[in-house]
Amino acid sequence: MSSGTLTRYQQLADELAGSIRAGVLRPGDRLPSVRELRRQRGISPSTIFQAYAQLESDGLVEARLRSGYFVRARRPLTGQPPEAAQPSGRITPVAISELVFELLGSTRDVDVVPLGSAFPAPELFPFEALARGGARAMRRLRPAQISGALTAGDETLRAQVGRRYALNGVSLQTDELIVTNGAMEALNLCLQAVTQPGDVVVVESPTFYAALQALERLHLKAVEVETDPVEGVRLDALETLLQRQKVAACWFMPTFQNPLGALMSNAKKQALVQLLARHGVPLIEDDVYAELHFGARRPLPAKAFDQEGLVLHCSSFSKSLAPGYRVGWAAAGRYARHVERLKMMTSLASPIPSQLAVAEYLVQGGFERHLRHLREALKTQHTAARALIERFFPKGTRMTEPQGGYFVWLELPPGVDALALHHQAMAQSISTAPGVLFSADRRFTRHLRLNVGHPVGPPVRAALKRLGSMAREQIAAAGG
Amino acid sequence: MSSGTLTRYQQLADELAGSIRAGVLRPGDRLPSVRELRRQRGISPSTIFQAYAQLESDGLVEARLRSGYFVRARRPLTGQPPEAAQPSGRITPVAISELVFELLGSTRDVDVVPLGSAFPAPELFPFEALARGGARAMRRLRPAQISGALTAGDETLRAQVGRRYALNGVSLQTDELIVTNGAMEALNLCLQAVTQPGDVVVVESPTFYAALQALERLHLKAVEVETDPVEGVRLDALETLLQRQKVAACWFMPTFQNPLGALMSNAKKQALVQLLARHGVPLIEDDVYAELHFGARRPLPAKAFDQEGLVLHCSSFSKSLAPGYRVGWAAAGRYARHVERLKMMTSLASPIPSQLAVAEYLVQGGFERHLRHLREALKTQHTAARALIERFFPKGTRMTEPQGGYFVWLELPPGVDALALHHQAMAQSISTAPGVLFSADRRFTRHLRLNVGHPVGPPVRAALKRLGSMAREQIAAAGG
Repeated sequence: MSSGTLTRYQQLADELAGSIRAGVLRPGDRLPSVRELRRQRGISPSTIFQAYAQLESDGLVEARLRSGYFVRARRPLTGQPPEAAQPSGRITPVAISELVFELLGSTRDVDVVPLGSAFPAPELFPFEALARGGARAMRRLRPAQISGALTAGDETLRAQVGRRYALNGVSLQTDELIVTNGAMEALNLCLQAVTQPGDVVVVESPTFYAALQALERLHLKAVEVETDPVEGVRLDALETLLQRQKVAACWFMPTFQNPLGALMSNAKKQALVQLLARHGVPLIEDDVYAELHFGARRPLPAKAFDQEGLVLHCSSFSKSLAPGYRVGWAAAGRYARHVERLKMMTSLASPIPSQLAVAEYLVQGGFERHLRHLREALKTQHTAARALIERFFPKGTRMTEPQGGYFVWLELPPGVDALALHHQAMAQSISTAPGVLFSADRRFTRHLRLNVGHPVGPPVRAALKRLGSMAREQIAAAGG
Repeated sequence: MSSGTLTRYQQLADELAGSIRAGVLRPGDRLPSVRELRRQRGISPSTIFQAYAQLESDGLVEARLRSGYFVRARRPLTGQPPEAAQPSGRITPVAISELVFELLGSTRDVDVVPLGSAFPAPELFPFEALARGGARAMRRLRPAQISGALTAGDETLRAQVGRRYALNGVSLQTDELIVTNGAMEALNLCLQAVTQPGDVVVVESPTFYAALQALERLHLKAVEVETDPVEGVRLDALETLLQRQKVAACWFMPTFQNPLGALMSNAKKQALVQLLARHGVPLIEDDVYAELHFGARRPLPAKAFDQEGLVLHCSSFSKSLAPGYRVGWAAAGRYARHVERLKMMTSLASPIPSQLAVAEYLVQGGFERHLRHLREALKTQHTAARALIERFFPKGTRMTEPQGGYFVWLELPPGVDALALHHQAMAQSISTAPGVLFSADRRFTRHLRLNVGHPVGPPVRAALKRLGSMAREQIAAAGG
């Protein structure tokens, strides 16, 4: 990966993906068997298996027991996936915060069905094991380690994080890694490291509201780029934009984008990194959902293709292992020392107890097993929730079918006002995340992001049914 | 306190403090006995005892066993205290960071005698008890508490912090308190809450370098105000400054200022708060050393006199209980909700393990006992280190005599270049904090801040002796 070239299996995967996208291979078609491909092309079975696993991970094919690999239906359960948004292309000073606080402040109540939440069910995480490990590590700690603690973070933790990347085919220097208070701090520090007040930053459309808030806080301007609900940022649109104006950075989420769930293929990630390198524009990569893939393999981050040190890669354990521990990191390439200094200036260092607890858990092993269970649970919940949405929501509702994470993004039929729907639902103790949260210029008025990271029991089922009814009523009232 | 008026005992303490400062009561004089004062003025014994304890806490008098209270010698061990600096009054864009990183980066090696360190000896803190308590609390934690965790912080912790203020005579609303990643984050968030890029902020002279770094990071300008090494910011100088120009905020450390150790009296703190209220200027109060008082009472914060909600009070447990846990807080008055939002935008929430460990420790009790031991140790180390400095440093060296904390501030005789001295000393594995770190315009070239928070054993003794010799050699070489 560090060479920036595609390996053999990736070339094969990309070739087959191209055939699928071009319609040469169609939904339901069986992929060539390993024996066929080996005979025709002289490719080794292990390369073929890797390529198929990659395609499965990208959501393009599915394995059927004892029958081989089949092209998946691209058609989501309900109608088409939402259309890619056409951003205005305007440079927008950002002022989203008031709305975000107003909406999210109301969703913290534990009695609310948390469809608007940004977190999966806490029951899915190994808090007991983390607490035990943390206590063990804290008791072993010598006082001198406290004052010796570096801004960059605990050495064992950084080594463990680096090792996981290496296992996934991404080589990072350990000293490039800086431990932060969650990915949120990492993203904010990286953004500050590459911008000055007044600069323009490219974000996806729709985009994660925290990115918009960070831009607002640092007095930056946003320009949104067209983003496909399945395949992520449209590179042609991005290139046009880069040719037209000076851009200080891009802030993207190439893997399981929030809110769309879009996943860029490896080839597309590589093309993105190369495009930005040609323009000398740094990429802030938010990779927090990557471990929550439903396919066999963890999607590679854009960082894997970074040869210029221009990718500031940010992630955390908050979605994958330890919510509330606030253990995140940045691998900020050529900006690593700058980010470390900003970290020192803003919060000095990250807390030792959280770092040691996570490091101890990783050293003891068990993370992979936990992740398998977590992914399985999220996939099951996704399927169950999507079936209910298909059943209860009005005809014409479009819905994404992400291959990881725990969000679905809905485009409701004309006549629906998603913000009004949110308020109506809150009055009945159901939270949602209305689409206007995800745009600097308040588009996505018919859209909702729903959290499907909670077990689909009677409360979630009833909430989805109620939401669907409310949407229908709105349409009827609008004369639809 | 919340009424903003001085209580009876404070009136008496301030009156006596005035007499001492005016020279009416002179060093060595005995204060009137309780019986005398009661007879003359009709004041109750408990009020008199409280006033005397206050004066002792302020470092103005000392109790002698079975003899009563005596006015302390104001003269420090070696020569006079350093002179108050005459700041240029210029508005200075801040660019101190490079120097701070260069100097501090070199002081982390555990083999270095840490006279330049910002932290006291880690052996002084109850890490074992904190780890035990943290483990207990984490095992009790229900998963739902994780996702319910508020940006503002753990409820028990906030209640405990609020309770300690109340015991010390400061009433804060619990919902005004926001838990942060150490005081550093609190100060940075408060600064951002009250400023826009380009604004002017008043700082002390000398000032804590982290304040200068925070200003630099937020594109703010600094103006330094004359600061007395014993009594803190000169209010007349501050008033002149406020009349002359628009100021967005003051960032001061009224209790045991870093690096001077200066302590404003209660009356002066009240006058400061009132002065700023007249000008509508918020005060960011860094109060992190207040628990480390050598006198009987914890000095009141300026926040105690805040009637307008203009004081953004910041502190932490990093110096008093739990270094490395990064548990701090802001009580940001009328800016509390704004600070909470900035916290949410920059790091979402503070880690739960650290918060629970500290909260559990506070609930279990033992904090007061730990603090008594800590204060006693720091006071002993102060005395021992100051005696060695007096003995080993060149004639004409001036030194502060703080009544709390763990720093002394030295003004060396002409001919000394403190930055060169720092580099010489580092080459011999002795760190110091040279004066240029503490000014936006690189004054204090003959000054050093020394950390006396470590046991004064043979290494510290040898280091102080060596530093003294190096200073003498510099003077000799300069023809002094």
